[in-house]
Amino acid sequence: MAEIIAREAAEAFASLKTLSNTQRSSALQKIHDALYVKKDEILAANQLDMTNAVDNKLSSTLVKRLDLSTGGKFDAMLSGILDVAQLPDPVGKCTLARKLDEGLNLYRLTAPIGVLLIIFESRPEVIANITALAIKSGNAAILKGGKESYETFKVMSDIVNSTLQQETDVPGKAIQLIQSRDEVSGLLSQDRYIDLVIPRGSNALVRNIKENTKIPVLGHADGICSIYVDSEADLSKAKKIVVDSKTNYPAGCNAAEQLLIHQSIAQDSTKVSSLINSLIEAKVTVHVTPEIKAQISGLNQEFIVDADGESFDTEFLSFDIAVKSVSSVADAIKHINTHSSKHTEAIITENKDTADLFLKSIDSAGIYWNCSTRFADGFRYGFGTEVGISTNKIHARGPVGLEGLMSYQYQLRGDGHIVGEYVGGGGKKVFVHEDLNINDVKL
Amino acid sequence: MAEIIAREAAEAFASLKTLSNTQRSSALQKIHDALYVKKDEILAANQLDMTNAVDNKLSSTLVKRLDLSTGGKFDAMLSGILDVAQLPDPVGKCTLARKLDEGLNLYRLTAPIGVLLIIFESRPEVIANITALAIKSGNAAILKGGKESYETFKVMSDIVNSTLQQETDVPGKAIQLIQSRDEVSGLLSQDRYIDLVIPRGSNALVRNIKENTKIPVLGHADGICSIYVDSEADLSKAKKIVVDSKTNYPAGCNAAEQLLIHQSIAQDSTKVSSLINSLIEAKVTVHVTPEIKAQISGLNQEFIVDADGESFDTEFLSFDIAVKSVSSVADAIKHINTHSSKHTEAIITENKDTADLFLKSIDSAGIYWNCSTRFADGFRYGFGTEVGISTNKIHARGPVGLEGLMSYQYQLRGDGHIVGEYVGGGGKKVFVHEDLNINDVKL
Repeated sequence: MAEIIAREAAEAFASLKTLSNTQRSSALQKIHDALYVKKDEILAANQLDMTNAVDNKLSSTLVKRLDLSTGGKFDAMLSGILDVAQLPDPVGKCTLARKLDEGLNLYRLTAPIGVLLIIFESRPEVIANITALAIKSGNAAILKGGKESYETFKVMSDIVNSTLQQETDVPGKAIQLIQSRDEVSGLLSQDRYIDLVIPRGSNALVRNIKENTKIPVLGHADGICSIYVDSEADLSKAKKIVVDSKTNYPAGCNAAEQLLIHQSIAQDSTKVSSLINSLIEAKVTVHVTPEIKAQISGLNQEFIVDADGESFDTEFLSFDIAVKSVSSVADAIKHINTHSSKHTEAIITENKDTADLFLKSIDSAGIYWNCSTRFADGFRYGFGTEVGISTNKIHARGPVGLEGLMSYQYQLRGDGHIVGEYVGGGGKKVFVHEDLNINDVKL
Repeated sequence: MAEIIAREAAEAFASLKTLSNTQRSSALQKIHDALYVKKDEILAANQLDMTNAVDNKLSSTLVKRLDLSTGGKFDAMLSGILDVAQLPDPVGKCTLARKLDEGLNLYRLTAPIGVLLIIFESRPEVIANITALAIKSGNAAILKGGKESYETFKVMSDIVNSTLQQETDVPGKAIQLIQSRDEVSGLLSQDRYIDLVIPRGSNALVRNIKENTKIPVLGHADGICSIYVDSEADLSKAKKIVVDSKTNYPAGCNAAEQLLIHQSIAQDSTKVSSLINSLIEAKVTVHVTPEIKAQISGLNQEFIVDADGESFDTEFLSFDIAVKSVSSVADAIKHINTHSSKHTEAIITENKDTADLFLKSIDSAGIYWNCSTRFADGFRYGFGTEVGISTNKIHARGPVGLEGLMSYQYQLRGDGHIVGEYVGGGGKKVFVHEDLNINDVKL
């Protein structure tokens, strides 16, 4: 069964790949319209999921994530589809044009990757989100949602499928929504047909997927982000940024989990107490090393615990942060490059040279100067919607929007040219290798 | 042991990442000079490898690949190092600049990937090649050569290591040359420290590596390239291109393995016989399907065999090609997208619309019109040297030069900016998202 799903997706991709931007974008409009018309039906199904969630005693965070009816989530989901439809066409953009010889021209054009497998937990709006991104980018997608959002998923997937089949040039099998739980492991072994797996969900979900597939996985397991407060930091900025990075949304992968304080501040009892107190006032428990503990005073002890061996390798995802002192920016860099998950790290300093060293040395997807790690997000970066945040070092990195779903292909256009006539191939002709202006390219 | 090698490479990377282009390029000059001075010593070691190879009855192809002394190979190897040194700096190139808000700017800058593990068989010049590319791109590299080139490798690796340590700012451990055979499997499990594996060698080597590591592998196992001769092909171009694609270097991954002939030609006995004969005259054995066999006449039967079930999924790497008839360009596209290894495919036609459909529909790294598949090569594309050809669909695709060894990082530079003040984060400020001219960026 999984093989059939994957093969049909690959076949649909072959046809989707040849559609124009107009055809792809108009399909998104049609999906938008169909979901709009069926709003009541979708929200009724969503209400059923919510009731089941409460019955099954799911955490209030999970229940809140499931809910499509409040906070303008449904409308935002719909307008997100149109936003994606209106983005510039990501397919067929020329990124290199080179004359190899008279009449022999090389072009590099962006092209969709192929078949994506997207596995997500709650958050039913992801269906609309990913469907829009996949179709716009010319990729086929297999979507597998969590059982918590089963009812919503079922209604929405029926609407998407029937709309594609009846009203658009996009093949129905280009977007397949898998409702049963069993298929996942079968799909993870379809490396012949599936090109990329994108898990959206818990740390455990991502780890489990990475362990169980040979298909490349785009995403992140941990988000262990750090903030380094330099000796030349403006302390009022530092407090503001540290508190925001930790508390704005502690369950986010871009929340700060570690605070490194330069010793000149860490050894100044007034300064370090004031910095730590800003966290405590925001109800954050600080996991401090002995040298920090020795300096802080007059603080609410309820929020102070000793750091242990795990503290600096932990993604708390809660109102907790590990705090230690470092002897220099170099020491901070070394600690981060060793302990971070290569997601996002920030330096707070007024010294540009120190900031530049930090920005140049840190090996993470995002490196920030005097701002909150919480900015690591596709919407905030201006990518429109995002498929997730990648801590991979190959292919896409950081927040991933449409561009991360693109590959490229080389086109070579000749007129009977053969290698045997050129130097290196047995002949005497030499290559011209003259770059052409990609803006002038008309293919 | 493997863990120490990998960890030391990662530590060296942290420092290599911060060096300037001048420091990296000057290290290449120093390596060049040292190899130049030690030419006699290197060639003596190479002679020893050659003698051993002959004693061990290695194939003449392998022995030829080992030989550094003939055909200007040694000098080409040295000048290749300087060519790489003189390439523009691939590190820190700004590819996106965006004002998110007043005083809050986002930059995307190219950055090295990290630690590369390169595993290759014979061809000792790869050492110089990869060392140059790795240092220039700011990546650390662990190189593991085959036992056939052991002596050459040993001498060259000693020269490279001592030069780096004594005469350059590049840490000695940034390029580690592993001489023993045992380390490979240990290294393949160091996914904590190694970011990318690049195998250069036989199909079997690449497959074996892909099966045995969780680290991303850049390269290709098969190179099953196809040529489609359309009904509107210029037959003289077709013959020239088919023969070149098949015979210019049959052991190359970019050699053609399949010939698809439109039925209007395949059913024209004169035309198809003449096309097939051009291959037979070049001593190519054609593996033909019955409908082709029925039409060809007057040809040397010695070079004609029946295609079997495997013929269209085989990388011959020899003077053999599988030949069949297809009913249309769509049929050719479908066959290729099903059977090819997504390396390089060509169409021969004088009809631009037919060519455009082929170019748009084929899902391979290279798609060619009226030219030989043998052009799929980093040197011919003008990339200078190459690290290999990738049939991956994520990250780098096709011939991979310096660019394929780069990742990128996002820098965000603010002045105390926090997410809590913005829409979506709990506040009211809205993002500006104004693209800046990347050519004006001064960081």
